[in-house]
Formats: sequence, structure tokens, C-alpha cells
Amino acid sequence: MVQLNETHDPALRSWVDSANYPDTDFPIQNLPFAVFRRKGSSEAFRGGVAIGDQIVDLAAVSAAGLFDGAAGEAVAAAAQGKLNALMALGQPAWRALRLALSRALRDGAAQQPRLQACLVPQVEAQYDVPARIGDYTDFYTSVHHATNIGRLFRPDNPLMPNYKWVPIGYHGRSSSIAVSGQVFRRPVGQTLPAGATQPVTGPSQRLDIELELGIFIGSGNSLGEPVAIEQAEDHVFGICLLNDWSARDIQAWEYQPLGPFMSKNFATTISPWIVTLDALAPYRVPFQRPEGDPQPLPYLDSEANRREGSLDIQLQVDLLTPRLREAGSVATICRTSYRHAYWTVAQMVAHHTVNGCNLQPGDLFGSGTLSGPTLDQAGALIELTSGGKQPLQLPDGETRTFLQDGDSVIIRGWCKKPGAARIGFGQCMGTVTAP
Amino acid sequence: MVQLNETHDPALRSWVDSANYPDTDFPIQNLPFAVFRRKGSSEAFRGGVAIGDQIVDLAAVSAAGLFDGAAGEAVAAAAQGKLNALMALGQPAWRALRLALSRALRDGAAQQPRLQACLVPQVEAQYDVPARIGDYTDFYTSVHHATNIGRLFRPDNPLMPNYKWVPIGYHGRSSSIAVSGQVFRRPVGQTLPAGATQPVTGPSQRLDIELELGIFIGSGNSLGEPVAIEQAEDHVFGICLLNDWSARDIQAWEYQPLGPFMSKNFATTISPWIVTLDALAPYRVPFQRPEGDPQPLPYLDSEANRREGSLDIQLQVDLLTPRLREAGSVATICRTSYRHAYWTVAQMVAHHTVNGCNLQPGDLFGSGTLSGPTLDQAGALIELTSGGKQPLQLPDGETRTFLQDGDSVIIRGWCKKPGAARIGFGQCMGTVTAP
Repeated sequence: MVQLNETHDPALRSWVDSANYPDTDFPIQNLPFAVFRRKGSSEAFRGGVAIGDQIVDLAAVSAAGLFDGAAGEAVAAAAQGKLNALMALGQPAWRALRLALSRALRDGAAQQPRLQACLVPQVEAQYDVPARIGDYTDFYTSVHHATNIGRLFRPDNPLMPNYKWVPIGYHGRSSSIAVSGQVFRRPVGQTLPAGATQPVTGPSQRLDIELELGIFIGSGNSLGEPVAIEQAEDHVFGICLLNDWSARDIQAWEYQPLGPFMSKNFATTISPWIVTLDALAPYRVPFQRPEGDPQPLPYLDSEANRREGSLDIQLQVDLLTPRLREAGSVATICRTSYRHAYWTVAQMVAHHTVNGCNLQPGDLFGSGTLSGPTLDQAGALIELTSGGKQPLQLPDGETRTFLQDGDSVIIRGWCKKPGAARIGFGQCMGTVTAP
Repeated sequence: MVQLNETHDPALRSWVDSANYPDTDFPIQNLPFAVFRRKGSSEAFRGGVAIGDQIVDLAAVSAAGLFDGAAGEAVAAAAQGKLNALMALGQPAWRALRLALSRALRDGAAQQPRLQACLVPQVEAQYDVPARIGDYTDFYTSVHHATNIGRLFRPDNPLMPNYKWVPIGYHGRSSSIAVSGQVFRRPVGQTLPAGATQPVTGPSQRLDIELELGIFIGSGNSLGEPVAIEQAEDHVFGICLLNDWSARDIQAWEYQPLGPFMSKNFATTISPWIVTLDALAPYRVPFQRPEGDPQPLPYLDSEANRREGSLDIQLQVDLLTPRLREAGSVATICRTSYRHAYWTVAQMVAHHTVNGCNLQPGDLFGSGTLSGPTLDQAGALIELTSGGKQPLQLPDGETRTFLQDGDSVIIRGWCKKPGAARIGFGQCMGTVTAP
């Protein structure tokens, strides 16, 4: 597990002024990774680290020879167009680079003049999916979501008997994952209209969101070699925001017996910035099961996981209809926290590998929809609107059950508490257009 | 759809003698692709084409400048360690290379001396997974399998109401796909023992096979741009053999509501050779639905698909226990044909993209278990043994319900009929060891 160290000191200030603003997502205690280039340019994408409203261009840092040793090796790996090589180097390399960047970005650092020349303003940046994602796995770690949606799909049997024992997951589609800003067409597919005995083909009428976090795997494991829960987090590079767009009408018709397929694989949007587990260390909280619930099986249980396996990441979903966009406004439709999840990141890694399945650098896990305990904390419209029966009332008088063409959805995430620096995730935005 | 042309002429003979043996898998009418290098060498893997008991080394052909034009471009792309670049070139390039190889390998070809220098004996070869598989999708195209296995998992509801309308599929795991010869550990996982209320963790006791074909995507489609069924086969590079190893006890406990996950992702084995759709053209047969079954929805229907959308590929599963191996024998446990599938290759492509999902060169589809209409044609032990209740009697007196440590399974496939050359797939072998 991660220990707090000098990089977390809330008193640290950077010579990048905007990193010291109290509401910045990217203070010197954060240092998340992305890949970027200048908008409209034909530059190569390369790794970058956010600091205030700037990006440290890691290809420029590498070329300038600013770091040596493990940090130098890490920054050279991060100079590429995808972060897989950096991810594969493993946790000691990530930590060396974090420490070197933290020291070089502090007020009074001797490297300031040379590092200043490596900064690119975020407003000038265009981002890409930060890794070559070999396999994408979507979990189902919110018991509240599983219960809410189970009630809609199976009123008599909302929560399956396996839920409290198995960190349920399924494989998703890598090819259609895109970075924040994704614009996609409303999916067409088969649905069974209410009361009909034969399906029809047409645009989905129940297009939904799923508020999730994405977990990027760093170093992998060999086929046949499980990762014990005690080592699980060593394999995790970091966390981003994720929207698992879902066509509920297609899902309801197709999902038995092999699970969601065409209802999910048309688009998945992630935030450009990956916040490392190291940056999140001050926001660890105990992993707790409600009284009376079974304790995890031994391969899913560890003292450290119980003590600090969960993360208190605040999450918010904003809906931006064309009318709200014109009015310069948004509608916040959900606020919740990742701390409510029923399974932790370490449990996901341990479960995914217990059968010998191999994870590879750049693999992505989705947390599953992160609905909290109350209905206004639900991370999907199907829950927020009781299956489309109770429309949301938006501040400008509009209503929504499911998404309409032209709607955008923005997910934000951040950690905040007294005595620690605010750690933000930036945003994850996507827009649906006509089919 | 593919037309028969000079490359299919059954009278063609090659100057490679072994390609003219009547029982060879690899006559001059086949010309399947793999990637290979010499066993025990540190050579780079590169593309190869099978001819009799030899491999045409496509890197050597490219270096020798034997072909020009489209065939030359294709052979240069195939000289790489994975076939993705060749796949991305599209059907006209694959056809140009097929024609050039067919002509150069014929009796009396002027290129014989130079091409002879590019041959590597198959006995000296080691194979690799032939493409970088971005996404792997497993379908469920045998109505017989769906009914047989549905009866075991859901006796009251064996075939779901969506089955005859939706080509059911789900996303699988790419990272654990390996080429024939794969040896893997028996998976460990959660299972619910009969009568128990709490699961246990341990090695799977019901390790099964699934006899499948693998379909490699050649040229892809852009996100948001469906592929019409009329163009679907233009995107298909070819077909291999596939064994979707399955832990039935893990599957039964985990699969609801999101489908199979840890019961499948520990290993998938494919044959090294990819047989092109062009080579299979003589073995097309009409796609037919049993009387009374619904006809496919328009996006899954075309005149060509009805006329010749199915493929008559003979399939056989051999079981090799340690005792049988010692005796130099095998037990054939299943014989069937791909022609029994309820959904065609073209329908799989059209369905997978109808929502705009993007396929990429090197993506792999599994057909799903290809059980035929009778129980001895079933492609999985769970069906052949009625859920483990009726053990198979092997020729040496042994019995098997599910696989034991040390067992190997070999899948073979071939096409054969009067008036056409035999087209073989080679074999797909895998072995399970102790956990």
C-alpha cells in the first residue's frame, strides 16, 4: 500500500502559479499523466504531466536530459505516443519520476528555467487515448447500482446470489474507447417494443450513461501466474474518469444469456488524465462491508485492503442539453463518491488474475456504474428516472428520461479534505448525435 | 461473394510434391497464412503460406523481389511479425497475392528455382499468434449448442426468446489467446458446491472444451459506419480453428447477470493457419432456417447470404489422455460440420457493426461452440456427457466427464467433396496441466 511522503505535503507550492490556486485539479501534489499534442498541429502525441493550467511535455524533458537514473528512464519511456512503455516499467519507476517532477516543479527549484521551456498550456492541447488498451474489462462494483438496475430488469430477483461473493465483471470493447470530447452517433440495433413478439431494428430510444472510473493496469502478470491481493496495487498505474454509454433497450433484448454486447460497444469515453494511486494516497479510506454481509473469500481479503482499500473520490455528472449549452448552463444530475463501491481496486486485480489470466500494461478496468446509497446518487439515467418513468426536471424547464441527440454529458471527479491538497481528475465529456 | 476462379481448379498441381498428395491439408488450392520462424532459432517471426509440407517464407519472397504490383505490396506487408498490415490492405491485395502464389507454385512455373529457395519445412517451424488481436468477440451461432447448454443451466427455459433474432455474442479476452501447442494451468476460481450456500475457491473440477472456428477480420470499418451484409465478407480475412476452454463450475456461479468472464479468460487456443474465404469458396452452401423459424431481420439478410452464406467445414475433436498418448492413440469424441450454424460469418459482421462499432484488422471472432443436431455432434464435454452425468467411454477403457490434468485436445478441420480440392485447416492442440 502507498505511504504518504514528501510529494503529498499540502504545504508544497509550485513555481507554476496556477498550480497553487485552491480550486485547481492539478496542484503539485497530483501530477497526473496524459498523452497530448498541440491542437491543430501534426506533432507526434507524447506523454505529459498536468501542473496547474500547464502540461509538462515529457518528450521535451527527456530530450533536454533533465532527469537521470530511474526518473530519466521513466521520462524517456513516457516520451512515446502511448504510455504503455512507462506503465510496463513498474511502480519504482513511476515513483522516481513523480518525485523528480515534484522536486523540479517546486518553488525555488534549480531546474525551473529548463523545465519552464518544456511547458505547454492546456488550452492549446489536444489529447489522445493515453495507452494502447489491449483488453478492457468492465466490473460491477456498486451494490447500489446492481440492486437498482437488477430491480428494473428482474423485479423478482434484483441482486444475484453471487454478487456479495464475486467481483462481477465482463469483457468490453477496446476499439471504441475514445478520449474526452468524443462525439458519436446514436446506436442502431435490435429492440423488442413493449408488448411485441418480434423485434425491430432502429435507433436506440433509451440511450443512457454510466458514471464510472477507469483503472489503468501498469505492470502485467504472466499467463498462469495470479497476482495476490497484497501485491495487486503494485500493478495499477492510475485512475481516470469513464462514461460507459449504454443503450438500455438494446441491452434488455440482447443480454441473456451472455451479457451486454451491442448495447455497450459503440462508444466508451475516458478522461485524458490518469491520476496515479500515489497521488490518491491521502484519500484512502477503510473498505467496509455492511453488517451481516459476508466477508470476502481469502484471495479477496487482506489487512491492508480492509484498512485502506477504498478511495474517497467525489464524482459529479453534468448534463448539457443544446438549450442549456446555448444558455451557458449545465444540469448537475448526480453527485456521489467512489467510497461506496462494494469491491476495491485491489480486489478487482486479485479476482481478474486468480485463474491465471494475464493482465498487460495499458489494460483498462471500468469500475462499473458508481451509484451511491440514495437514488439521487445514482450514476445512470435508468436509475435516476426509475426506468424512464420519472423524467428529470432540468433547471431550464426541460425534462429528460434518456439522452436526446445533441446532449453532452460531463463527468468530473476530485478528492478534497482538510489537511490535504485537492486532487482533481479534470473532466470526461461526450456528445451523442443523430444516428 | 467469392467466385470460383483459376486458383480453385482441382486439376492444378504444384512442383512441391507433397502438395499433390490426396490427403494433404495444404494443396495449391488452399494457400493459408500463418506467422512462423524456425524452431529453437532467434529468427524474427514472419508471414508464411502453407504448401504441402512446406512453408513459403513471405519475408524471403519479399526480399527476393519475386512479385510486383499489388502482390508485391501484399507480400511486403506479410513479411512482418504479425499479419495485421496484410489484413489491412484489403481483399484485392489478398487476392493478388493468392493468384501470384498459385501461379508461382504450379508445375512448370518459371519462378520455381527462386521460390524453392524460400521454402521452410513445416516440421522445422514454430508458430505464433498470427495477428495482434485488438478485440476478440465470441459468438454463439449453434442453436444446438445453445439449446443443449441452455437445458443444463436453465432447464425450464433452454433457448432464450432472442436467440432466433439476435446473433448473440460477447466480448472475450485477447491477452490469453495462444497458438496451437498452448499448455496452460487448470484455472482456480470461485464455485458453489452442490447444496452449499457459500462458494469455495479452488481448481475447476469441470474443465471443458468448446469446438469453434475463429474468424479473422481483415479490413476494418470506422467508428459510426456500419458494414452492410452485402459487403460484410469483404472485411473477412479468413478462418482458423479455435478451442474456447471453459470452466463450467466457475461459469455456472459467475455468469449472471453479465455473462462468462473468469470461466473463459484463462486460455483460448487457435490453429496457426488462417484459411482464406477465397480458398473456401467451393464449399459454400445455402444458409437455411428450419421451417417455421423466423427469417432474419433485413440488416441480417441478403440474397447472397441465403444462396451461399454457410460453409461446409468438417470438424473433429480428438482427446489425448496421458495413457492414450503413451499408447500412440487418440479418442475421437466429436464429428460435426460448420454448415449447421444458425448464423453466418456475414451476419456476424453485419450485426457487430450495425450500431457503429468499429472492427479493426486482426480482430478475432469465435463462432461459438459448433454442436451439430445430434448429441454425438456436440462440441463440448458438458453436452457430450449430459452435464457430467454420462461419462465418455474411451477406446482404452478409460472414462472422462471433464478434462483431467495432462489431457490434450486436438481440433481438426477440413473441406472435402468430389470435384474440388481438399482444403484443410491443420490442427489446434492444447494441454491442461495441474493448477
